[in-house]
Amino acid sequence: MLEHLKKEVLEANLMLPKHGLVTFTWGNVSGIDREQGLVVIKPSGVKYEELQLEDLVVVDLDGQIIEGSLRPSSDTPTHLVLYREFPNIGGIVHTHSPWATSWAQAGLPIPALGTTHADYYYGEIPCTRGLTKEEIQKAYELETGKVIIEAFETGGMEPLSMPGVLVSGHAPFCWGKNASEAVHNAVVLEEVAKMAIHTVQLNPQVTPIDQFLLNKHYLRKHGENAYYGQKK
Amino acid sequence: MLEHLKKEVLEANLMLPKHGLVTFTWGNVSGIDREQGLVVIKPSGVKYEELQLEDLVVVDLDGQIIEGSLRPSSDTPTHLVLYREFPNIGGIVHTHSPWATSWAQAGLPIPALGTTHADYYYGEIPCTRGLTKEEIQKAYELETGKVIIEAFETGGMEPLSMPGVLVSGHAPFCWGKNASEAVHNAVVLEEVAKMAIHTVQLNPQVTPIDQFLLNKHYLRKHGENAYYGQKK
Amino acid sequence: MLEHLKKEVLEANLMLPKHGLVTFTWGNVSGIDREQGLVVIKPSGVKYEELQLEDLVVVDLDGQIIEGSLRPSSDTPTHLVLYREFPNIGGIVHTHSPWATSWAQAGLPIPALGTTHADYYYGEIPCTRGLTKEEIQKAYELETGKVIIEAFETGGMEPLSMPGVLVSGHAPFCWGKNASEAVHNAVVLEEVAKMAIHTVQLNPQVTPIDQFLLNKHYLRKHGENAYYGQKK
Amino acid sequence: MLEHLKKEVLEANLMLPKHGLVTFTWGNVSGIDREQGLVVIKPSGVKYEELQLEDLVVVDLDGQIIEGSLRPSSDTPTHLVLYREFPNIGGIVHTHSPWATSWAQAGLPIPALGTTHADYYYGEIPCTRGLTKEEIQKAYELETGKVIIEAFETGGMEPLSMPGVLVSGHAPFCWGKNASEAVHNAVVLEEVAKMAIHTVQLNPQVTPIDQFLLNKHYLRKHGENAYYGQKK
Repeated sequence: MLEHLKKEVLEANLMLPKHGLVTFTWGNVSGIDREQGLVVIKPSGVKYEELQLEDLVVVDLDGQIIEGSLRPSSDTPTHLVLYREFPNIGGIVHTHSPWATSWAQAGLPIPALGTTHADYYYGEIPCTRGLTKEEIQKAYELETGKVIIEAFETGGMEPLSMPGVLVSGHAPFCWGKNASEAVHNAVVLEEVAKMAIHTVQLNPQVTPIDQFLLNKHYLRKHGENAYYGQKK
Repeated sequence: MLEHLKKEVLEANLMLPKHGLVTFTWGNVSGIDREQGLVVIKPSGVKYEELQLEDLVVVDLDGQIIEGSLRPSSDTPTHLVLYREFPNIGGIVHTHSPWATSWAQAGLPIPALGTTHADYYYGEIPCTRGLTKEEIQKAYELETGKVIIEAFETGGMEPLSMPGVLVSGHAPFCWGKNASEAVHNAVVLEEVAKMAIHTVQLNPQVTPIDQFLLNKHYLRKHGENAYYGQKK
Repeated sequence: MLEHLKKEVLEANLMLPKHGLVTFTWGNVSGIDREQGLVVIKPSGVKYEELQLEDLVVVDLDGQIIEGSLRPSSDTPTHLVLYREFPNIGGIVHTHSPWATSWAQAGLPIPALGTTHADYYYGEIPCTRGLTKEEIQKAYELETGKVIIEAFETGGMEPLSMPGVLVSGHAPFCWGKNASEAVHNAVVLEEVAKMAIHTVQLNPQVTPIDQFLLNKHYLRKHGENAYYGQKK
Repeated sequence: MLEHLKKEVLEANLMLPKHGLVTFTWGNVSGIDREQGLVVIKPSGVKYEELQLEDLVVVDLDGQIIEGSLRPSSDTPTHLVLYREFPNIGGIVHTHSPWATSWAQAGLPIPALGTTHADYYYGEIPCTRGLTKEEIQKAYELETGKVIIEAFETGGMEPLSMPGVLVSGHAPFCWGKNASEAVHNAVVLEEVAKMAIHTVQLNPQVTPIDQFLLNKHYLRKHGENAYYGQKK
């Protein structure tokens, strides 16, 4: 069942320790088969070095377990909100990667301070509001997904041109057209977060790059006039 | 004698260099057999790459050497105070891991700034007071244990929900149900300490996360209603 | 065609991940054959672990592809400006190495704060002005080269004694007598950038080293009275 | 000739890249045979990965080459001043290790902020004054050694209880009873320098640890009443 997607999700999960994004089991990747409406996700608390294809859990968009003997990631309800509300994304990753998490803990969005940022994230990377007591006690992981959606609606952002978010006091979620691209964006986020903190330390008055430079770099890599990389 | 415990303590010691927590011999792990009242601990000053099972030293809770031809860690009296006063812990680790040690040198507790912290440490990680001249000259390592106990009594903390401490001007001690869990908690402490310094640099006015978020994350992983990970 | 130069450019490109200067494909190295007026450069967006000799692209100084089936790096026009205007350089490298990029994002030159800097860079490492909207929209990569030239003309600097520059809001470019030396200088720049940020954090009032110390160190390694290293 | 010492000096040099203390050839280790008054030192500018036993250079205390076909390290005159003036040291190392060099560039001594520091360095690690124009132009490397001696005389420090120094605007020199111990002390210095910068960032008002704590830790490891490690 969903062998191809499972392989992709397994490989994407294994990229997390390889890129230094996770300590212990602090992260999870999922991917979705949009036709069948089924999500493949990492099981909760399983070590990456022991993770096998058959450990992956298949759930539907309501969170019902369709296949798998292990519990899915405890963050599954967050993933599902994002899949339901962002219909053009195909993969999601959650980590506690340290530089991005430091921004999330500070409760601050990451300003677009350079072209590395602009190559992947089309503007300031948002930080959600904190969850209320009621939200946390009612359905914590579901509500985490909802405040992400709220941040995107408030900010008028598109998920594929802003493929990540910081959850205040918590850590980042990233996504992409598939699981592999989601992890790619998580690596970029961590690198961008690291450079941004050093930039503001060097120059506390620094302002975001000009909109026309942001446009130029983002559109060099994305959209029909992109000219970075090879023709596909 | 205590072969199983020795193996566990050896493996836990070898996790320290693997996780980048120690330079040279700056760290030690012990484990206790509560039934026999015996502690297995690393010998003093022996390199991790040369450490063998037979090098480990067995001491009783009064510090008498029961087995072993090498001197136990010079920090043994600190370990013994903790085992005597915290009856539900089974393993202890001391390191000079650099981020946690920086907080200890600053004489500051680590505030609970995010859910990574809350997943393991139920509140602010305490920093002891400095030792007095008399304490240091009388019985330095024993008194180090005592100021840790004092910090926990003053703060009304429980050792298993606050499995680590910073000794002011010195470095951290961590513990857990066994030696392996103690090292796990030391890795977490180092990661949390690193992210906390970057968080306060980004936002000097940052406040700890809400108590209800702290509760939620801690209880997701600990206690009878925990739902993180797999059923055991 | 240009087999020797291609080998050198391939090896220089592969030094980038080895020295930790690149994430994904964020970098490129080129080298020039001055007699033939031909430049060998990395193809755009190709992963370093898959890069083969036959993937390299040969272009002339006007940017015409002379050999190769892949697109050259999107930064090729910047390289070509530098080769045209700096006739004594033989290799160029562009990276987004994080410490140097943080200075570029801050829009600040790197002051000569120590002898490590002075051993390779004869004075403050310049940071260009930002590009205007017109420059970016007209011919972004070409104009990037031009603002570098402008910075060198304004500052009265020589490219071989100042073998690198920060492009404001973007990242560094470095160069040297050949591709290998260009990468060497990029490694130095990253190390110097890292130490400079920590130096100014420790001492915000720090001033550049004395001109006579700068002279001494630079001339210990460069020019006819150099006495560092072995006779050649 | 001096085969045993050469082996030790070679091994000590190779420890520098292993411990991450050097980039390229930015470091050198020497050792002395006090009976013969001969020093074995790394040749100038030779890569660590290519360094062979027969490349090492033997010089006398006046800097005359006694054996070896390569030029000795350009820092040889600095080493020789230290051997002449500090008669109880047996090995010297110079690096540009980044954290210690950041303190040297800031022109600041490293205060004793914790017990890691106190275990090896008995008090504040000094930073020399800057060299004058005359000193630099006359005999740069010799005068570098002399300002180190001056700093020790002014501060009333003993070289074996303060086995390192920062040369202002330049980088550290460390030493010990032999070449291996010198490198050991250089690793400690780098770790201590890293933690000290983070400590002062966390707490700009931090003061050095109490003298009695400094005494306790230093004397736990050094002198006739030391009780750290195994009996020898």
